[in-house]
Amino acid sequence: MKEDEYLLPLYKRLDVSFVKGKKSILYDEEGKDYVDFTSGIGVNSLGYANKEVVKTIKEQAKNILHTSNIYRIKSQEKCAKKIVELSNLDMQCFFCNSGAESNESAIKLARKYGNTEFAKAKYKIITIKNSFHGRTIATLKATAQEDKHKFFGPYPEGFVYAKDINEAITLIDESTVAVMLELIQGEGGIFMQDVHKIKELETILKSKKLLLIIDEVQTGVYRSGNFLISQYFGIKPDIITLAKGLSTGIPIGVMMTSLKNIFKAGDHGSTFGGNHMSTTVCTKVLNILEEYSNSGKLEVNIKYFNNYLHYFVDKYPSLFLQKNGWGFMQGLVLNDENKLDEIVKKSLKKGVLVLKSGKNIIRFLPALNISKKEIKQGFERFESSLIEILKEEKRK
Amino acid sequence: MKEDEYLLPLYKRLDVSFVKGKKSILYDEEGKDYVDFTSGIGVNSLGYANKEVVKTIKEQAKNILHTSNIYRIKSQEKCAKKIVELSNLDMQCFFCNSGAESNESAIKLARKYGNTEFAKAKYKIITIKNSFHGRTIATLKATAQEDKHKFFGPYPEGFVYAKDINEAITLIDESTVAVMLELIQGEGGIFMQDVHKIKELETILKSKKLLLIIDEVQTGVYRSGNFLISQYFGIKPDIITLAKGLSTGIPIGVMMTSLKNIFKAGDHGSTFGGNHMSTTVCTKVLNILEEYSNSGKLEVNIKYFNNYLHYFVDKYPSLFLQKNGWGFMQGLVLNDENKLDEIVKKSLKKGVLVLKSGKNIIRFLPALNISKKEIKQGFERFESSLIEILKEEKRK
Ligand SMILES: Cc1ncc(COP(=O)(O)O)c(C=O)c1O
Ligand SMILES: Cc1ncc(COP(=O)(O)O)c(C=O)c1O
Repeated sequence: MKEDEYLLPLYKRLDVSFVKGKKSILYDEEGKDYVDFTSGIGVNSLGYANKEVVKTIKEQAKNILHTSNIYRIKSQEKCAKKIVELSNLDMQCFFCNSGAESNESAIKLARKYGNTEFAKAKYKIITIKNSFHGRTIATLKATAQEDKHKFFGPYPEGFVYAKDINEAITLIDESTVAVMLELIQGEGGIFMQDVHKIKELETILKSKKLLLIIDEVQTGVYRSGNFLISQYFGIKPDIITLAKGLSTGIPIGVMMTSLKNIFKAGDHGSTFGGNHMSTTVCTKVLNILEEYSNSGKLEVNIKYFNNYLHYFVDKYPSLFLQKNGWGFMQGLVLNDENKLDEIVKKSLKKGVLVLKSGKNIIRFLPALNISKKEIKQGFERFESSLIEILKEEKRK
Repeated sequence: MKEDEYLLPLYKRLDVSFVKGKKSILYDEEGKDYVDFTSGIGVNSLGYANKEVVKTIKEQAKNILHTSNIYRIKSQEKCAKKIVELSNLDMQCFFCNSGAESNESAIKLARKYGNTEFAKAKYKIITIKNSFHGRTIATLKATAQEDKHKFFGPYPEGFVYAKDINEAITLIDESTVAVMLELIQGEGGIFMQDVHKIKELETILKSKKLLLIIDEVQTGVYRSGNFLISQYFGIKPDIITLAKGLSTGIPIGVMMTSLKNIFKAGDHGSTFGGNHMSTTVCTKVLNILEEYSNSGKLEVNIKYFNNYLHYFVDKYPSLFLQKNGWGFMQGLVLNDENKLDEIVKKSLKKGVLVLKSGKNIIRFLPALNISKKEIKQGFERFESSLIEILKEEKRK
């Protein structure tokens, strides 16, 4: 079966498919194994076939997958409690099914706030160059990458792009209601914002009663080492969005906010959002990750992982300019962007999965519970692919 | 735990929560049983704890939940094949995570088509009064219910509302690219379009190379008796959207289209969309439903269900004006809209779950494999709630 026979050709897919996984190892149809440094782009936070997760899914499937939000859903209430407690913020949650949907929810909330809480309505949301906020029409327009906008207009007015935080501050005017940003840009090149600049932005926004929206779809759920990277930055955003890693592979999104009185019943909603299965799994995943993080293992393994990246930058200066990133969201910046596809493909051949980000970055988003052994094995394979690439180059 | 402590108050929830289900019976925390005529608003197409589905979920959880769409996903390819085959249309699929996301995908596709396939770009999409297409900013604007739009603007331009199909036809102008509609309005009052009018619309659109987008998020997946209600209407839409019932409770959405050459790699995407779990379950659900439908049981039980609704209209003319709907998507139209909440709540008390639609309609969306015994039991409870309401009325 050709893959494109029944699927719209929307992805440039590598010609491999996986049938099984165990922790951070994936197996393809021929039984070949791969060390996975991608975790489904930050989704499989506990890797594959985690025993406790499998058990939870099995039990939940036997009981109930979904009921409508016209009834109370206790697993949703528990999951919200867990998320709010881990965040250490006085917030409430709305559940949806993706990163894009959580950002749609954030944009709607900010707009209602701007439309109802000021004498003169405010609606503009400032976003940052190279951001990525999703693929729905509004989140695509919020994504400050104009080359992506070409065919799908007309777009909603009210998104303003700043090249950086400094410019965002200067762009705030009387119709601005919020600034929305990723603290590390995931798709836009593993670019981390400066802590002091973000705090300055936070102070200015708070003084004007304007909103700080942090998109933690990729940085959240312990990817940074903290539950939220906002915690590492020491900020208290008004709205935070989460998705990807929350349920280690079951679709789920969350928009959480300290604005508890803006949305009224009927203002927003989702059919699947917050269902029994996705929220039960989410609570289980968060409990496991909390314990793992408290044990200190997460931090130790992040360091262990990082040492390899430093080693590669030192050892292969012809290939790598520097290391970017934080926690388990890392990038190796290439000197030559033409090498990007070659390294990804060669790594695949050698049995290790890595991602791209931006134009010239090898991105690493391993499962958060990846073991030292898996890290070592993965990087050995990665290095063998680098060596082969350099050899082939010499031969030319 | 108060439900609203950690959840934004976006739903007016009935104060009951379910812990377990078996076929079409749900159990609350006290062990009380309810016959479910709601199926999570059309989601739990096979009811609760279907043995084959539970087994599929368990096996899949042990193997793999999710990998990124940068790799091939065989279960996604198979699921797309199954959907296309059941539709009997020459189409391709894109997978996402909700009804709103599938409609976002449809709108983006229609707009790219309008922007690239004509000498002068077309972008307007005509939608029908009282439609419901989702809660994202663009799908909310596509939803022709202006009272819902109040707080969340600015909206994207280009959605035009028609009060009915006749008006839709007259509204087509040189910037129109598509008409988008539900063949039975689900949220807007179980209102079914006229077959001949729809065919006329189809002919006019085809003659102008404009698109017919059918939102089958609620009508699709055998809810009408056919896999697609478009098949019953005898039309060939250019784009069809599906969600709800596809995976009997795991979040999933599909946008399918005969326009195979408009979207290019990178034009659209989704992190979770088309993952191993949701598509494997979907294929299993569709296989079961296909067999069930082919066996004739679906049709027989739809009739059995309908007979009860006719009986209620005949027997309680003081309460009910008429029966609306088709297949397993049914409504009883109330004479007095003030009775709507009362009937829903009294039914809950008597152990049967029913939904609302529009302002004055009791909506029935049972699981597609609901048994005669469950139907009988549910309607006995429903009738006892009607009798009690009428008695209480007399007493006043
Ligand atoms: C920061 C960020 N926001 C939003 C999204 C969109 O998430 P989804 O693909 O689940 O809609 C992504 C996806 O990569 C992301 O990285
Ligand atoms: C016809 C129709 N379209 C779209 C939607 C939106 O689906 P979702 O809530 O999954 O986003 C619904 C939901 O009720 C619907 O009935």
